[in-house]
Amino acid sequence: MEQQLKSEISETLDRLFNPRAVAVIGASKNPGKWGFLIPLNLRIGGYEGKIYPINPKEKEILDLPAYPSIADVPEPVDLALVVVPPPKVPQVIRECGGKAKIALVITAGFGELGPKEKELEDDLARAAKEADIRVVGPNCNGVMCSSPTKLYALMPACFPRHEPISLASQSGNVGGIMLRMSMRRGCGFGKYVSTGNEADLHMEDYFEYFLDDPDTEVILSYVEGARDGKKLMEVARKVTRHKPIVMIKGGRTPAGTVAASSHTGSLAGSDAVFSAMCRQSGIILVDDMDELLDVALALKRQPLPKGKRVGILTTGGGLGVLSSDVCDNMGLEVVRLSDTTLRKLDAVLPPWWNRGNPVDLVAGLARSSVKGCLEALASAEEVDCIFMLGIGLGSSRAKILKDTPFYENPDLQKMIERSIEDELNSVRTVVECVETFNKPLLVVSDAAIGTEKDKETALEILESNGIYPYPSFRRAAIVMRHLIERQQFLQKIS
Amino acid sequence: MEQQLKSEISETLDRLFNPRAVAVIGASKNPGKWGFLIPLNLRIGGYEGKIYPINPKEKEILDLPAYPSIADVPEPVDLALVVVPPPKVPQVIRECGGKAKIALVITAGFGELGPKEKELEDDLARAAKEADIRVVGPNCNGVMCSSPTKLYALMPACFPRHEPISLASQSGNVGGIMLRMSMRRGCGFGKYVSTGNEADLHMEDYFEYFLDDPDTEVILSYVEGARDGKKLMEVARKVTRHKPIVMIKGGRTPAGTVAASSHTGSLAGSDAVFSAMCRQSGIILVDDMDELLDVALALKRQPLPKGKRVGILTTGGGLGVLSSDVCDNMGLEVVRLSDTTLRKLDAVLPPWWNRGNPVDLVAGLARSSVKGCLEALASAEEVDCIFMLGIGLGSSRAKILKDTPFYENPDLQKMIERSIEDELNSVRTVVECVETFNKPLLVVSDAAIGTEKDKETALEILESNGIYPYPSFRRAAIVMRHLIERQQFLQKIS
Repeated sequence: MEQQLKSEISETLDRLFNPRAVAVIGASKNPGKWGFLIPLNLRIGGYEGKIYPINPKEKEILDLPAYPSIADVPEPVDLALVVVPPPKVPQVIRECGGKAKIALVITAGFGELGPKEKELEDDLARAAKEADIRVVGPNCNGVMCSSPTKLYALMPACFPRHEPISLASQSGNVGGIMLRMSMRRGCGFGKYVSTGNEADLHMEDYFEYFLDDPDTEVILSYVEGARDGKKLMEVARKVTRHKPIVMIKGGRTPAGTVAASSHTGSLAGSDAVFSAMCRQSGIILVDDMDELLDVALALKRQPLPKGKRVGILTTGGGLGVLSSDVCDNMGLEVVRLSDTTLRKLDAVLPPWWNRGNPVDLVAGLARSSVKGCLEALASAEEVDCIFMLGIGLGSSRAKILKDTPFYENPDLQKMIERSIEDELNSVRTVVECVETFNKPLLVVSDAAIGTEKDKETALEILESNGIYPYPSFRRAAIVMRHLIERQQFLQKIS
Repeated sequence: MEQQLKSEISETLDRLFNPRAVAVIGASKNPGKWGFLIPLNLRIGGYEGKIYPINPKEKEILDLPAYPSIADVPEPVDLALVVVPPPKVPQVIRECGGKAKIALVITAGFGELGPKEKELEDDLARAAKEADIRVVGPNCNGVMCSSPTKLYALMPACFPRHEPISLASQSGNVGGIMLRMSMRRGCGFGKYVSTGNEADLHMEDYFEYFLDDPDTEVILSYVEGARDGKKLMEVARKVTRHKPIVMIKGGRTPAGTVAASSHTGSLAGSDAVFSAMCRQSGIILVDDMDELLDVALALKRQPLPKGKRVGILTTGGGLGVLSSDVCDNMGLEVVRLSDTTLRKLDAVLPPWWNRGNPVDLVAGLARSSVKGCLEALASAEEVDCIFMLGIGLGSSRAKILKDTPFYENPDLQKMIERSIEDELNSVRTVVECVETFNKPLLVVSDAAIGTEKDKETALEILESNGIYPYPSFRRAAIVMRHLIERQQFLQKIS
């Protein structure tokens, strides 16, 4: 019975993320209305199915024929997007019955406002049951699936490219920022859903779906309060054996709880209890949106470390000192390198190198020793995981020099070209190491975040290989700690 | 006597930062050598004084006539930049006597390597005393003064614009990254010096100079170990009454201390003792490079808050919840708004607004209520400081739409133009509020960091008014906490 129910949910949610046709109920010709902007985003995103605007007063909207009601649409639609005013929503849901599998209610003004409006939300839920239709929301900002349908049914104008990372968020605002952050970072998202007030479908339903979804490798979540905490944790326990769930919990403090109660209307329980439940269920709890994406990108690409013994390769002493401090504070061990490793490093570094960990590449223009150093650390028995600091400095010099008359000097040109080549070889070595040695290797660069114009070529090579540099050592160290905890969790349950 | 000594140091260091002429001893025609790249950076940066390359084997370097020795230079130079091999440095320093006021020794390979090389460093110090010349370094990466001399005598190719923030760093590598970060952030630096091993001039000498320097409003510092801890704290105590000192301390943990001892050769003492001394001396201790720049930018521009009562204006509920959590965790009070303030907000927000703090602007396209909301918070007696979250989303939609054929729709164009105008008005209001009300107002935007291409116009307006948005609420909250502590310190000593 449970098995059947589960596959039913999975099938329904597949209609949500990959609908063959979409109706927009409350579509509008007025660009100041979501009824205009949501189908507009669908069209800009290149949605591959059919779009049916529903509005009794219009003939066409965005060059698409409009229909007076969903009943008039000539074929069944999978997904109904609802943006009509709150009091009309239950009736619209009823009308969707038999025509749509699932409705996503953008409209706000339900349980989040107070007990009176909560009654309307209960009406909505009853209407859904009667019409045999599942409901996302209300009070949400849309759904996205970057592949294969290219569904960007969203309030914000966000069009991230595909990446096997999926997000379910109780806050549309947090979800929108995550999508935007991914675009800025040059990565993407596979599926996103704003779960809203969860009048019908709950967070755990999306977790179930993502578990079965071959296109999702890492599951992200923003939660303010669980509609059914016990069920959520039960499902999470089942999911996290196979795929990691990374979660931000909003409302962990008294001030946050007050804010949450006026936002999604959720009553957060004790933070200590919730954190303990998350730990037991294998949920990786993170503190903010940066950390959510940071951890997701590493889980997607990097092997898990066997332990907490860290090797650091740095392009400067100060960076090495600061990163060692961070490691100590975070319970990562800056391990003493074995004689075998030191000898390997002696072979590639100048005689005055510091013979310690962090391994300081020694100020200088040539980065030809990076390959030997990274391989020495990656093959060292005493090293579980590696950080590489300071990539991107060589090519930034090149970029500045190329715009000056001095670049006419052929020797300077040659030197610059060699330093770029050295840097490109360095990042190619990083990619090789991640693929060859079974150890996580996180790259830190202050040039990590920005648009293409801003990016060094070296960083582009890393990113096109799925390795996203972290803008600060602290952020990379936090990620490494989560990777270690994930490994420990999997060991414990195996 | 002390007064005279102090002014002597100030005068000497003015020759370091604003030299009328510079000699580069060890200049080279080989682009792979610092003897080439440092004068190259001087030229690219547009240094306004004369550059004298010193090399007995060359006639010219970088189109500048070369001289066999500094003695052959036809006029006194203020600053000698030294890049000759370590054993030659003491003799070169002697030769500078009478010709230069101050020498900056880039060359490494002194005390940081071990006791034998420390002897050479002592030789260097003795040579400086005998020749009556002050020395910066050795083992440093240069000096910078963006105005008026445009001196970029640096190993890294960094050319930040002017800003009344100055930095003295015991790590050239950390210093270089700070300069690069400032360029990426769109801000700048006034003066920068890499203090290196501090064989002669110490960190506190630069503090003294910055105290007297009318072009420095905020003093930044990276320290691994003080040559004379008591003196450093004495000077700091004198300085921080007038100008804030913000410091990163490298080597605060056992692992960091090990790394520091092989870097600058400094032996860090107890972290607890050092932290306590910093607190007493009014030094603002920060954890990393991002925080160093974050705090500097706020200290430069924002008034100090009278207390820790926070008002938050947010463009979404989830952001509000997460920021409330961060406030609680950091000891900031998300204050309950008074009836007076609530009534002012009622007048500008739709009837269903949340009537609480954070003030949620309510999802919607019009931002016309920002002005009224910010003014209500800024004038509220119960609010000491303000955060504004979510700027930059309106114009990001505009940017995407402008590239689509849909933009031909005149109504859509009008709507987009209005939303851009609303956003520009919002940031203009932010600038007005910072100037009118005596309360700090920190802006948070995930679009905060990147190059021009990446920047929304709204953010450019803020930045051209000296208001730099923070990329995450956490970073802004950490800054606010430091502003509060600075205010408390000034109150205590007044």
